[in-house]
Amino acid sequence: MSFQYPLEVRFRDLDGLGHVNNAVYLTYFETLRLHFALELLGVAHLAEVPFILGEISVRFLKPVFFGDQLQGSVDVSRIGHKSFTMIYTIKRGNEIVTQGSTELIWFDYKTQRSVPIPDSFRQQVASYQRA
Amino acid sequence: MSFQYPLEVRFRDLDGLGHVNNAVYLTYFETLRLHFALELLGVAHLAEVPFILGEISVRFLKPVFFGDQLQGSVDVSRIGHKSFTMIYTIKRGNEIVTQGSTELIWFDYKTQRSVPIPDSFRQQVASYQRA
Amino acid sequence: MSFQYPLEVRFRDLDGLGHVNNAVYLTYFETLRLHFALELLGVAHLAEVPFILGEISVRFLKPVFFGDQLQGSVDVSRIGHKSFTMIYTIKRGNEIVTQGSTELIWFDYKTQRSVPIPDSFRQQVASYQRA
Amino acid sequence: MSFQYPLEVRFRDLDGLGHVNNAVYLTYFETLRLHFALELLGVAHLAEVPFILGEISVRFLKPVFFGDQLQGSVDVSRIGHKSFTMIYTIKRGNEIVTQGSTELIWFDYKTQRSVPIPDSFRQQVASYQRA
Repeated sequence: MSFQYPLEVRFRDLDGLGHVNNAVYLTYFETLRLHFALELLGVAHLAEVPFILGEISVRFLKPVFFGDQLQGSVDVSRIGHKSFTMIYTIKRGNEIVTQGSTELIWFDYKTQRSVPIPDSFRQQVASYQRA
Repeated sequence: MSFQYPLEVRFRDLDGLGHVNNAVYLTYFETLRLHFALELLGVAHLAEVPFILGEISVRFLKPVFFGDQLQGSVDVSRIGHKSFTMIYTIKRGNEIVTQGSTELIWFDYKTQRSVPIPDSFRQQVASYQRA
Repeated sequence: MSFQYPLEVRFRDLDGLGHVNNAVYLTYFETLRLHFALELLGVAHLAEVPFILGEISVRFLKPVFFGDQLQGSVDVSRIGHKSFTMIYTIKRGNEIVTQGSTELIWFDYKTQRSVPIPDSFRQQVASYQRA
Repeated sequence: MSFQYPLEVRFRDLDGLGHVNNAVYLTYFETLRLHFALELLGVAHLAEVPFILGEISVRFLKPVFFGDQLQGSVDVSRIGHKSFTMIYTIKRGNEIVTQGSTELIWFDYKTQRSVPIPDSFRQQVASYQRA
């Protein structure tokens, strides 16, 4: 049911310890989040994505190396009044290497303020989860 | 009492929205953590830092731009049996722009296992906090 | 004849101007170079790649954006006594967006010195180009 | 005479080989270029910097590590009709670790075309070099 997207590990993603650096997992989450948002909202451009990042948390479970084949999945786990939660899982084969979540805030760029989440979004998420 | 370190915003730290990208804050935290660890442990090389990252959480409070002067602070907030917590605050002047915390696991690289935190570390933290 | 590899543009590859940052093209070239080297040399691990980077040059022809589909190609254009040249082309459809070249130095990590390129490498390149 | 700026090596600048990754030198050059441009042009914002990057070349002379103290210098070496050249040197103490140059094209963002370099820029460069 969740949105799936493959993630390619670049050599530049490694750090001096020889495995993927912790900060790069936020880039992996961002890749998953943006591609999921474009599909979920049915929009073509990032400028039409109406939410911003409020909080993030990550659990680092296994080190990841150059050449590893990763598969990411992302889903909406909660929709509140003005914010909602996305959850992320990154796997190497059947092994979960990282998990995380983000609090996302519905945002009006014109007024630079958070605004209530429209019902249309709740319907898009529900339709997606049924698909 | 907490460890202080200035953080310079590079143009490369920005993303397509024109402000510092979310993943870069983990790099700022890493910079704070490593410089703090070298001072706290009294060691000269990163290879002598005996803990690894288990979990991280970040709250994004204000956008940060190229040219902003940032000041980071980091401290140890909890020491458990095999893991401890560092907390991070990044300020622009008197304004807090980001807060976060990391769970760090004491680790034996030879056996690739977590091990109990030695008492010497508790004393180093206590001495540091009194300084 | 040249080695081909697709390149995915991440949102993090963009900078404050909204297009792929100049430094990221070196990461794209590195991705092409390493995957080409593994195939050309018939080795499984980066640690077996016996050359280091001496010089690089890049021509930036067109801006690249999130969502663009890129195709990279790389080839060996010259083999000297201790160094050789790889050339890189990145295209979006039929349009060349970036070109570059790297001088690579055959290197003995044990003695930390450049060494003559073995004849086996000339044969591997010749076989590859005939393929 | 040249513009001087210190460069701090972040742990994230290292790659799996334990030294600063090649792409990061372009970020170091960018840092030097932008801070130099703001001073040379006497402007406060990057949006007022009226040139874009056409070509870049880098010579990698020595590996650089976490904790190294670097000093960068940058200067204008040539001013043509529509483009000019900046040259970069990065040192660790008295040792040059990297050198490079960039071809920069005077650019009108409104018309998206290269335009002739104004005489005022030649005077700014001449004044700077006399300073």
